[in-house]
This record gives sequence, structure tokens and C-alpha cells, in this order.
Amino acid sequence: MLRPRLDPASEIPLYRQLRDYLRGAILAGQIGGGGRLPTMRDLSEALGLHRSTVAAAYELLEQEGLVRTQVGKGSFVVKSFAGAGGRLAWDQLLGPLVGETPPAGPSPRDVISFASSRPAEDLFPMAELRATVDEVIGGRDVTSILQIGPPAGFPPLRLYLIEEARSQGMLREDEDLLITSGCQQALDLLERVLIRGGEHTVALEDPVYPGVRNLFLRSGARLLGVPVGEQGVEVEALARALSAARPRLVVLTPNFQNPTGTTIPLEARRAILKQVRKAGAVLVENDIYGALRYRGSPVKSFQQLDASGHVVRLRSFSKMAFPGLRVGWVSGPAPLIARMAEAKQLADLHSDQLSQAVLLRFVESGRLEEHLHRMLRAGLERLEAVEQAAAKHLPRGTKVTRTDGGMNLWVRLPEPLDAAGILPKAQRRGVSYLPGKYFWVDRREPGALRLSFAGLKTEEIERGVRILGDVCREEMREPRSDRVQLEPAVV
Amino acid sequence: MLRPRLDPASEIPLYRQLRDYLRGAILAGQIGGGGRLPTMRDLSEALGLHRSTVAAAYELLEQEGLVRTQVGKGSFVVKSFAGAGGRLAWDQLLGPLVGETPPAGPSPRDVISFASSRPAEDLFPMAELRATVDEVIGGRDVTSILQIGPPAGFPPLRLYLIEEARSQGMLREDEDLLITSGCQQALDLLERVLIRGGEHTVALEDPVYPGVRNLFLRSGARLLGVPVGEQGVEVEALARALSAARPRLVVLTPNFQNPTGTTIPLEARRAILKQVRKAGAVLVENDIYGALRYRGSPVKSFQQLDASGHVVRLRSFSKMAFPGLRVGWVSGPAPLIARMAEAKQLADLHSDQLSQAVLLRFVESGRLEEHLHRMLRAGLERLEAVEQAAAKHLPRGTKVTRTDGGMNLWVRLPEPLDAAGILPKAQRRGVSYLPGKYFWVDRREPGALRLSFAGLKTEEIERGVRILGDVCREEMREPRSDRVQLEPAVV
Repeated sequence: MLRPRLDPASEIPLYRQLRDYLRGAILAGQIGGGGRLPTMRDLSEALGLHRSTVAAAYELLEQEGLVRTQVGKGSFVVKSFAGAGGRLAWDQLLGPLVGETPPAGPSPRDVISFASSRPAEDLFPMAELRATVDEVIGGRDVTSILQIGPPAGFPPLRLYLIEEARSQGMLREDEDLLITSGCQQALDLLERVLIRGGEHTVALEDPVYPGVRNLFLRSGARLLGVPVGEQGVEVEALARALSAARPRLVVLTPNFQNPTGTTIPLEARRAILKQVRKAGAVLVENDIYGALRYRGSPVKSFQQLDASGHVVRLRSFSKMAFPGLRVGWVSGPAPLIARMAEAKQLADLHSDQLSQAVLLRFVESGRLEEHLHRMLRAGLERLEAVEQAAAKHLPRGTKVTRTDGGMNLWVRLPEPLDAAGILPKAQRRGVSYLPGKYFWVDRREPGALRLSFAGLKTEEIERGVRILGDVCREEMREPRSDRVQLEPAVV
Repeated sequence: MLRPRLDPASEIPLYRQLRDYLRGAILAGQIGGGGRLPTMRDLSEALGLHRSTVAAAYELLEQEGLVRTQVGKGSFVVKSFAGAGGRLAWDQLLGPLVGETPPAGPSPRDVISFASSRPAEDLFPMAELRATVDEVIGGRDVTSILQIGPPAGFPPLRLYLIEEARSQGMLREDEDLLITSGCQQALDLLERVLIRGGEHTVALEDPVYPGVRNLFLRSGARLLGVPVGEQGVEVEALARALSAARPRLVVLTPNFQNPTGTTIPLEARRAILKQVRKAGAVLVENDIYGALRYRGSPVKSFQQLDASGHVVRLRSFSKMAFPGLRVGWVSGPAPLIARMAEAKQLADLHSDQLSQAVLLRFVESGRLEEHLHRMLRAGLERLEAVEQAAAKHLPRGTKVTRTDGGMNLWVRLPEPLDAAGILPKAQRRGVSYLPGKYFWVDRREPGALRLSFAGLKTEEIERGVRILGDVCREEMREPRSDRVQLEPAVV
């Protein structure tokens, strides 16, 4: 029998007290799975409550997925969280998954994988890394590296990065810099400080890196996908989005966008900044790939072009050095960075200091610059190899988006090819990639796929794209009826 | 002039569209600081909207701190976020700070600091660490360490920790384990998966480590402090809290609680588990100090005692090895761990792999065990030193909570001493500590303070506590009127 102790004098409303009580009774197995709750009338009479109080409590339980109400039949416990032996039924307790996350982590060794946007392992400068680590571990600073540190980051690294940004005309006196565990954490801290708990819109490139889309999707923000064309985000579409939806955040990748590889030209950057200022939005400049330009001239960053405190810039060592060492940084208006540092302390105290110290030494010793030279040389070779292979092997009608750097080539196969549909065949032939479906916000284009070329040798690239071309041609030769029969009829 | 374009057909309610528009106009400086918004009547007539729609939009703006409504005078922009030159006024845009966070990071070298619960730097095994790092960087696995890894953790470390837990009778087949960036991140991931977006109560020890209190405070959860006595959390008080408030999470520190140093006895653990199961709550066993027992016998963990899937256990290398290397882990029911791994991927992709690999090698080589032996020997000496110094130097009437391990001694000075009030004097004499105010949830006790002794040598401990005793005695000798005169009159 249910006997809630409700307190009308409490500042917690009665319907919530009743909800909490019923929730606990369900979780504790006092009302079994499939069991019926008292009717709202019976319970309101038994407890001397308004019917609407009971109704509100039941509605909250239904929203939580604990209870299902069937008109005319009553309210039932969906399934008990408490299974046999008083066990918690976790699968029931936890809410549904949100975004589609591509499989993480390394692929099997014998597959040519275009699936992960990461640097080449064969280029890792192992001797230089060993020397760097020796210097750090043997150095005078080592005790402070091993001890607990400040949330804003390992101080010598933070000061180095501030100096570097200032020398490039960024980071004015009223701006500051925070070390993060990669760009992903910087995005997460921005979500905590600027989005969480409010009703905000976030404008994203469409298509976009799924880690940014899923993060804001989960935060409950309204997402607004702004189309990416051949020259990055479409300026006119962004202007319309800013004026109509008034997003709080606009997240843009200025250079070699993931997945399209596009770069926003200088004049478009100026126009975007003007729009962002007019709309009172915050522009997040996610410049994770900027250092990896293989050809052409660098374009001034949004942060270099802005003097109005609307830009937050994200960078990271992970694409230019060792992704397993999780060190990135974020710079922008000092009050925002202070809040992000506070949020970081609650998230993980501070980033790992051994890696921060190793990367600082790697930069200061000049080894990162030498390494970057080698990466840029190899990157150009690999970019040219994937362009040539795509032109040679992929079916007529394939569109390849031009890129001058980074790690990704955006390919759109002609109709009726479906990049997700042919992936299993490609994988059986030893080639993997990510189909476009992982990257869309509002759009869909079945033929799109991302080829992450930077981690592969030129001969692997040539062979992998050739196999992909073979799979495409076989697929196009197959009678279409064989395939559509597998799908249920659309009525 | 304000000209919002509102869309009655949109799924976004009109009051939110209007709020978004006005918000943007304020942020963009179209309505200056101190400027008056149109009256609700004028705006509703001009736009053909219900008065209540405009009122709801204004109320949201007021909640956000953008607008202040004065009865009979109208609604005013509090201050414009857009300052001179179209700049964003970040201090206005950002919400207020939440919890009181103690100062983080290292203290000046010449202060005897009891303020930070961290291991002794003089005991860091530098030669062993150097050998470990050499082995890792020279080992066969090094490429996979440097490359991007899986969110659940560096696989060899994860497997090692799973084996270890199984050998200790924990981690059944339906449980799993995730590497985190210290215990703080495990708490943060639990908040994301189990608390965020709901209306939940979290039961915490009172006093408690501020990192856990501030995290859940910020998440919007209702916090419920359960008093800690001489033997850890008070079982009867916890039973009442579980039955009355139905918390979703109960966070307990079984061993050497921070700040009180207390350990929950075996029978109390069994009783707590029974209550938690009855209430359908989740018990978070934050066992960050368990390995640092200096005397007495270990007590079975909640996870060892539970077979019902109600326990999530947190551990970390940070207190037993090097806190600057941010590696902890969380184990519990597999569906929960899967959700936490997904949340972790959105938070920071994965924890730093260099530190994970270094700590794995440090454990596997037997060096951690040797190091722990030395830490336990030193810890006992330091614990006895702080106990003896407290008995000898602190004023009559001081209460010291008994501990058998960990890093902290909980001291309650007799009235009228105020631990926060005398801290500046102590600091001028070269001694620092954390006053109790940082640790309370619902209670207050002005005389309480935490002495973190583990990072100090015995002679520093003796000298530091002697100075603290001197400061206390001087304070008690001073005429009280001298002090209360400094406070404004209470009327």
C-alpha cells in the first residue's frame, strides 16, 4: 500500500513530493513492472489532494518513461527498475541515447581506413619525443608537473601560448587563455557556461564534425544547420539564420573544415563578423586544422579580425603532434575564460600536466616546427594522391570538394549510390570510411562520404580509392530491383 | 525601432520568438543600457499579440538578468551587453558564480600549507618514474599510446584494472569499468548521465569535499547534507533522508573521508546498502583514499558487499602516485558505464594516454606497490605527528576527529574561535589551512578546519600546528569587543 508522507509546508510543491515518492516506490520494486497505479481519483481522495496535483505527478512519471497512461484503463508502471533480488534495472532507469556517434578508436591493421581524421603514425617523430620526455622528466620543474596544478593549465605552457598569440596580433589585454583537454573539452565547457539550463539556439555548419553536433544536441539546445558550400559556410544563409533564429553561439571552422575540407575566404570572414556583432551572438572559431595548410596562403583568423569581444578561438596540439596527448587551448574574452576555468575545475580539476609539459618542451625545442615541416610535405603528397585517385577511380558524376589542407576530402557519389549502403561491401574488400550520415545537422545527401587521407601512405590511398571505385561500379551495375526489394514499401 | 519577424506557424512559441528577438536587440546594442523597453500594452498592440505573450517574453528576459521591471515605471535594460564599439559586455552576459571554491594550485614555498589534500612531493619516486617513462616511450605499444584512443580508456590499463577488481571480488559479469580524468570527472559524468535535465535530489556527506558539492549545486540538483559523525555518515540520519527526500544519488566516502578523515564501519555499510536498495537510489562509493590506510584493518567496500547493482565505485591514482597525472576509474553496472563512456566522448574524447600508459607500467612493474609501502610508513609518522602536535599545541576544548589514513585531520576549535577569521593571522605567520566553511552543505560550525598533513614533513607539521596554537591563544586573549566593533551593527 502506498503511504507517502507529504509536507504541504515544504517549498517543494506537493506534486513533486508525490512524484518523488512514487518514483522511489517504483524503483524500490514496491510497485512491480506492469503494475497499475491507483486511479488519479482514488489517490487524490485517499490523500486529500487536488486531482490536478496527482495528474501532474503522473505526468512527470510518464515523461520520465516510468509510467504509461492508457486512456480508460489507468496508469501502469512501464517495467519495474527493480528486477529479481531487488536489483536496479539500469536499462530502464537510463534515458535514451541521443546522437549517432561513429565508432571510435583504431581500426583493424589490415583495413585501409579513411575513417578517422588523425595524423599519420608513420610520421610520429619518436626519437625527438624520447629526447623531449627525457628533458622533461630530468628537468627542474618535474615536481610541479607531478603535483596537482591550477585549472587554467600548466603555467609555463599557458604563458608560452599567450605570448605566441600576442605575437600574432591576437589576445588583447582584456582576453585570456585556458588549457583544455583537446578542442572537444573547450566545446563542452562553452556548452556548460553559455548554453546549459537556458533555451538557446546554436548555429552549426551543415555538415559538421559529429562531436560538436552531438554535444549541443544532448545539451537540449535548438540546433540550426547552416549549409557549407565550396567556400565554407554560406554567408547569406548564415545571415538569415542569425536574423531569424538569434542563436547564442555560432560554431565555425575557418580552415579545412571537418568533414568538407573547405576554408572560409577573408571577405566572407569579415562579413560574418559583422553579422555576428549585429546579432549579439558569440562566434566560436574552431581552428583545429589551421596549422595544416599544404598549399595556398593562410587567411587571417576571426580572432585577428575581431576587436569587439565576440570571438572565442579553439586550438589543439592533437592534429599537429600526438592525438593521444590530450592538450588543446581556448582564448577569448577574460570573463568568459574565467567562467570556463571554473567549469573546468568542476569537470576534471585540470588537464594532465605530464602531457602539457612534454608538448611545451616539444614546441620550445623547435621540434614541433621541424615535425610540422615534415607533416606538411607528406600532407601535400597525400592530398594530391587522394585527389588524383578520386579523379581516376570514382564514378563519373562524383563531386570532390576542393581543400588545401587538413585531413579530410569530402566526396559526393552520383545517384543512386548510397555511401552508407555500400560501406559494408567496401569493408569486406578492406576499405573503410565514414558515410555522410554521421555529419549532417538538417540536410541529407546519401552519396556523401568523408575520406580522411592524412593518416595513410600514398600507395594505400591509391589502392583504397581504387577499391572504393570498384565497389561503386559493381553497385551501379546491379539491377536496382534487387536492392529496393529489401526495403519495406513506402505507403 | 523594434521590428521582430515572428512566425505563428513555428513550433517555437511566440513568447520565445519575441524573447529571442529582444535578447538579440539588447545584445546588439539596439536597445542601450538603461533604455526602456516599450510598455507591454504598446508592444502587444503594435505586434498584434496577446498581452500575456509579451509579458512572458519580458519575464524570461528578467530571469536572465537582462531586463528589470519596475512597477508603474516600465521595463528597463539592466545594462547593455553591447558597450562602446559594439563590444559584448561579457560580465553582464554571464550568470552569477555558484559555489565557493577554495583557491587551487600550489602555495608559496615559504608557507607551511595544510591547505591541499595531496601527497608528499619529497616522496615522489623520481628514479622509478624515469625508468617507467623510458620503458613506455621505448616500448612496442608507443604508437597506439600516441594515437587517438577509445573513450573507455587505454585498453591495456582498463583490462588490468578489471582483472584487479575481479581478483578482489568486485566487478561481476554485468558490470564494467571506465577510465576517467581523476575522480572529479567520474562525478561529473555521473551528474551528466543521472542528474542533468531532471529534478533530482543528491544526498551528500556534510561536511564534504567542495568539488562534489559545487558540481551538483551547479547542476541544479537539490542538495541534502547528511551529517558526518565520528564514524562517517550517520546511518540513522541517512535513513531518514532516503525515506523523506528520495534522493537519486547518495555520494559517500567509505574510507578516510575528506575533510573529516572518518571511515564507515562494516555494519554501518551493510545497513546503508539495505536502505539504499529500499529507496531505489544509486550509491556512489567515492573511494579515493582507501589505499592509504596507515593503521587498523581494511573494511570491505560497498561494491564488495553489494550484489544488487546499486553501487558505482570511484578510484584514482592521484592520491597514491602523482596527482598531476590525471587518471582515475569508475566501475559499476554495465549500462551505466556505457552511458558514462558515451558522455565522456562528448566531454573530452578520452583521457590522456601517455599518463595512462605510464601509470600502468608503474603498477605492473611493482613500483607502485613499493612506493605505497614508503607512503604508508611516512603517512603513519605524519598522522601521529599531527595528532601529537594538535594535542600539545591547540587550545583546551579543541576536538580532533580520529582517522586511520588518508590525508586530512578534522579539527574543531573551541568557541569563540572562528577558523576563517583567524586564517589571515595564521597566514601572516606562515601557516595555511582550509577553514570549515568550504566544506559545509547545510551545517555550519565556525571553529572547524581541515589540516591536510600528508604532504608535509613531521617537523613542518609540528612547527605549523604550534604556530596555529599560538594564533589561537592570542586570539582568545584579545578583548572580544575589539573584534565585534569591526562588524556593522545588526538592527
